Amino acid sequence: MATESEPRTVEYRSTCPVCRSLDLLGDKWTLLIMRDVLFFERKTFADFSTSSERIPTNLLSSRLKKLVACGLLKRHQYHDKPARYEYLPTAMGEKLRPVLDIIKQFGEENLKGGR
Amino acid sequence: MATESEPRTVEYRSTCPVCRSLDLLGDKWTLLIMRDVLFFERKTFADFSTSSERIPTNLLSSRLKKLVACGLLKRHQYHDKPARYEYLPTAMGEKLRPVLDIIKQFGEENLKGGR
Repeated sequence: MATESEPRTVEYRSTCPVCRSLDLLGDKWTLLIMRDVLFFERKTFADFSTSSERIPTNLLSSRLKKLVACGLLKRHQYHDKPARYEYLPTAMGEKLRPVLDIIKQFGEENLKGGR
Repeated sequence: MATESEPRTVEYRSTCPVCRSLDLLGDKWTLLIMRDVLFFERKTFADFSTSSERIPTNLLSSRLKKLVACGLLKRHQYHDKPARYEYLPTAMGEKLRPVLDIIKQFGEENLKGGR
């Protein structure tokens, strides 16, 4: 029942802190998974697969690996035989909560129209 | 010397405001251009080309078009013969300032290591 944490593996384009954050978070899925973890308490691969945005399972798998590798999530084995894992936010992952809050607010105020 | 504004052209994956914001902003370049506009007062294609992240010119061109189309930037012709354009933030674009502030803060606090 180990909790894993791996070293960060992101190549940064510059020393700008905005740019570095985007190197880590700047794609369409990474912050959605963090939204699921932090706002909806989703934890397992199956949980994330049920999100209404229907992330393809190959992308979900690669993004979860990246999020563990860069220290935003930790993978925890909660069941033995068969092995079952859940993904929990690290202390650094928790720090994305205000980032997601303000992104949510921007969306609510500016992107309300029909689908 | 017209100021252009076009209708939004983004396909949204869901009604979630976090997801909608990421549909608009969730790539490695879009928010960097908005950083240049809002934090560094860069305005022209040449200005943006000089950023230290060295955005490829074809991507810069497509992202500027997208930012105008979705209402975050407006294109303004400031010189005639030859025609010269600058890109200015709209009222909606200005609302990204607190989003960028908190992304910057996250980077400063968590992603400080060597390049």
